[in-house]
Amino acid sequence: MNPSINLSLDQVHGLALDALTANGMGADHAEAVAGVITQGQRDECHSHGLYRLLGCVRSLRSGKVDGHAVPVVSQPAPSIVKVDARHGFSLLALQTGLPLLCEQARHLGVAALVIRNCYHFSALWPEVEAIAEQGLVGLAMTPSHAWVAPVGGSKGVFGTNPLAFAWPRPAGQPFVFDFATSAIARGDIELHARQNKPIPLGWAVDAQGAPTTDAQAALAGAMQTFGGHKGSALAAMIELLAGALIGDLTSADSMAFDDGAGAAPLHGELLLAFDPARFLGDDLAPGLQRAENLFAAITGQGARLPSQRRFEARQRSERDGVWIDRALYQDIQALLA
Amino acid sequence: MNPSINLSLDQVHGLALDALTANGMGADHAEAVAGVITQGQRDECHSHGLYRLLGCVRSLRSGKVDGHAVPVVSQPAPSIVKVDARHGFSLLALQTGLPLLCEQARHLGVAALVIRNCYHFSALWPEVEAIAEQGLVGLAMTPSHAWVAPVGGSKGVFGTNPLAFAWPRPAGQPFVFDFATSAIARGDIELHARQNKPIPLGWAVDAQGAPTTDAQAALAGAMQTFGGHKGSALAAMIELLAGALIGDLTSADSMAFDDGAGAAPLHGELLLAFDPARFLGDDLAPGLQRAENLFAAITGQGARLPSQRRFEARQRSERDGVWIDRALYQDIQALLA
Repeated sequence: MNPSINLSLDQVHGLALDALTANGMGADHAEAVAGVITQGQRDECHSHGLYRLLGCVRSLRSGKVDGHAVPVVSQPAPSIVKVDARHGFSLLALQTGLPLLCEQARHLGVAALVIRNCYHFSALWPEVEAIAEQGLVGLAMTPSHAWVAPVGGSKGVFGTNPLAFAWPRPAGQPFVFDFATSAIARGDIELHARQNKPIPLGWAVDAQGAPTTDAQAALAGAMQTFGGHKGSALAAMIELLAGALIGDLTSADSMAFDDGAGAAPLHGELLLAFDPARFLGDDLAPGLQRAENLFAAITGQGARLPSQRRFEARQRSERDGVWIDRALYQDIQALLA
Repeated sequence: MNPSINLSLDQVHGLALDALTANGMGADHAEAVAGVITQGQRDECHSHGLYRLLGCVRSLRSGKVDGHAVPVVSQPAPSIVKVDARHGFSLLALQTGLPLLCEQARHLGVAALVIRNCYHFSALWPEVEAIAEQGLVGLAMTPSHAWVAPVGGSKGVFGTNPLAFAWPRPAGQPFVFDFATSAIARGDIELHARQNKPIPLGWAVDAQGAPTTDAQAALAGAMQTFGGHKGSALAAMIELLAGALIGDLTSADSMAFDDGAGAAPLHGELLLAFDPARFLGDDLAPGLQRAENLFAAITGQGARLPSQRRFEARQRSERDGVWIDRALYQDIQALLA
């Protein structure tokens, strides 16, 4: 038997929708979550594809996440759009706030979208790509759980704290990046621990704060940020902007709230949108051309733009569908029972 | 003879002011530049202290920088404050735009300050600290000259592209960082080349794009960003936000414009200000307290906050004055003749 099965993107979407609604999620939420799960699978970000359904359903069944929460929009200041997710997943809250964010960015030049009280499990690139699709520049960040030590420390304070950015291009895919400010995903360390394999230096410190190649010692210690003191500074900035500034939980607060349940982190998210048309006025076309010159200077020397691999996968998946591990497919089928 | 001489901060400021005005700089510009040079010397950022006077005067004498340019403020959209520096140094333009930036941030929640057509030589931390002094959160970035290769490349595309951030604290100094997205300053590689010393791996690639420890080969090749593909992505973001978005030169454009003259880079700068009072409303105090908890979790485990060394130097300098190399002092005296 072939260990993988082929699904069209419509089938991926339908499968995700069925699994979520069968587990009591409201139609609006299920549509929003199935959308990003399909995007993740399509771009071959496997950990953010159908695999995530297992975690979503676990979170729903635990009763922590409200699958029917109705997001509430407010506007505490002209350039701040705030959406209270009311303990639902972040994605419907994002969809609810996005049109007003874009409208305010077009009106004011820059605007912020604050999502509060949300459970967050998804990558940020679909969110900044959605902003770029509107011809705007997007920036997004969020804390997670406090697994990552500050530089020079030994105890987790920061989350894996992703930062994502998208720049709209007149033709083709936007310029997009989305990276964790931790050196590596926690799952990679867990995988090495299970396989009794050493981890590279730079991923983690042990409980005494000493750099370690022992995956078990790493899990008992703390992860490191990427890029030394610079990555550590960025991780702190994300705690401040997407935690303290928006009145939501930092990664340490969120981990304390979870109290070992292992649910998706409850916290907030900050997105910014900039309108190039307002910044550049009559110089919009030459400004966008300047960006194209930058991209050409990168690709012209054989270097790659971020997200290129993802965009290539997207093209393949739209043409040929995606291949799913049969065991995963069966696990998802079991969620429908 | 003691190789160093002691100066009070007032004396540093007066010396800088005299050197600049003696070389034809207008009083407003000289005051703004002398201010940040004094701050740099005070905080023992020696390359941004009195030493910078030599470069400033060289730029003035070359005729490239207009020492009398009157910055012009406009507001193309409610949340965008734009200052055209008209080929003067950036600092008077910044001072001119800062009050309106803060006013708009307080009014709207978030606002942007765009500085265009400026010559830039100063660190960004005094700028974001000035925003934090107003109780606002500041973020600043600027391109420079295209010395830094994208990850996987061999040719300079990015500048050293600093990113600076400041968070206001109810008591004491703000939380501040200011780092280059290059792995190291270009001057450090030049220094190693002069001393025929090898450089660490990770600083630079040779002309073929291979990692090198040979400082000469590095200068013929290109510098690297910090943090691999993540640092490279950040450097690109800064070119886009503080170059293309604001209708000003990228690092490659700026280097082409300089055409080997070695003046300070001509380009633009983007600053953002966020008002915690507008984001947090009635929850301002608990939001700021959440940030304090974060800082306590960092320092409580023996790790340091960024800029701590600078703040310690500041305290020393305000008490004891600063020590200046006698040769530098004489070089500056020579500028007064």
